[in-house]
Amino acid sequence: MNVFIHHVFFWLKNPDSVEDKHKLLAGLEKLTAVKTIRDYQIGLPADTSRGVIDRSYSVSWLLVFANAADQDSYQVDPLHLKFVEECSSLWNKVVVYDTLTNHT
Amino acid sequence: MNVFIHHVFFWLKNPDSVEDKHKLLAGLEKLTAVKTIRDYQIGLPADTSRGVIDRSYSVSWLLVFANAADQDSYQVDPLHLKFVEECSSLWNKVVVYDTLTNHT
Repeated sequence: MNVFIHHVFFWLKNPDSVEDKHKLLAGLEKLTAVKTIRDYQIGLPADTSRGVIDRSYSVSWLLVFANAADQDSYQVDPLHLKFVEECSSLWNKVVVYDTLTNHT
Repeated sequence: MNVFIHHVFFWLKNPDSVEDKHKLLAGLEKLTAVKTIRDYQIGLPADTSRGVIDRSYSVSWLLVFANAADQDSYQVDPLHLKFVEECSSLWNKVVVYDTLTNHT
């Protein structure tokens, strides 16, 4: 079955601030309560290091939705809007990769 | 339980070549036979479009491993080396994000 993968990478304004990182991680934990999220993973850069690896981000937020409509709904979910309001001052860069899986 | 997420984005040399895209997708399907892979998703850019979204890549290859050692093992697995040999001429850019999940 196809799923919709929403993978977000956050770069903190203060990447060396343990407090800011904890605030973002706590905000994401609260955000996992959104009903349309089927699966999620919150993570930090691994120790791997090769030329093709980007490990400059602070926090990884990987979401799996049943379909594109559920991801659309997540974007405007009150919990998501509250997360952005409370946490967006913590980061200065976000990169998002939205992928539809390809099961033929 | 913590897992190791290995998310690879491929940019094809000929992004408009349906044939090249199918070759890469077929190569990835074969690669899923690597024993240490716990879960995988092969995908294409979704239709979403906002400033923070990067949808310039051709194919997304998302792998979940039980731990970092299993990902190390995958890198040198004969199936992986064969995939690189057979398919690396298809792409001109790869970006990898390796993430350790953060379950406290």
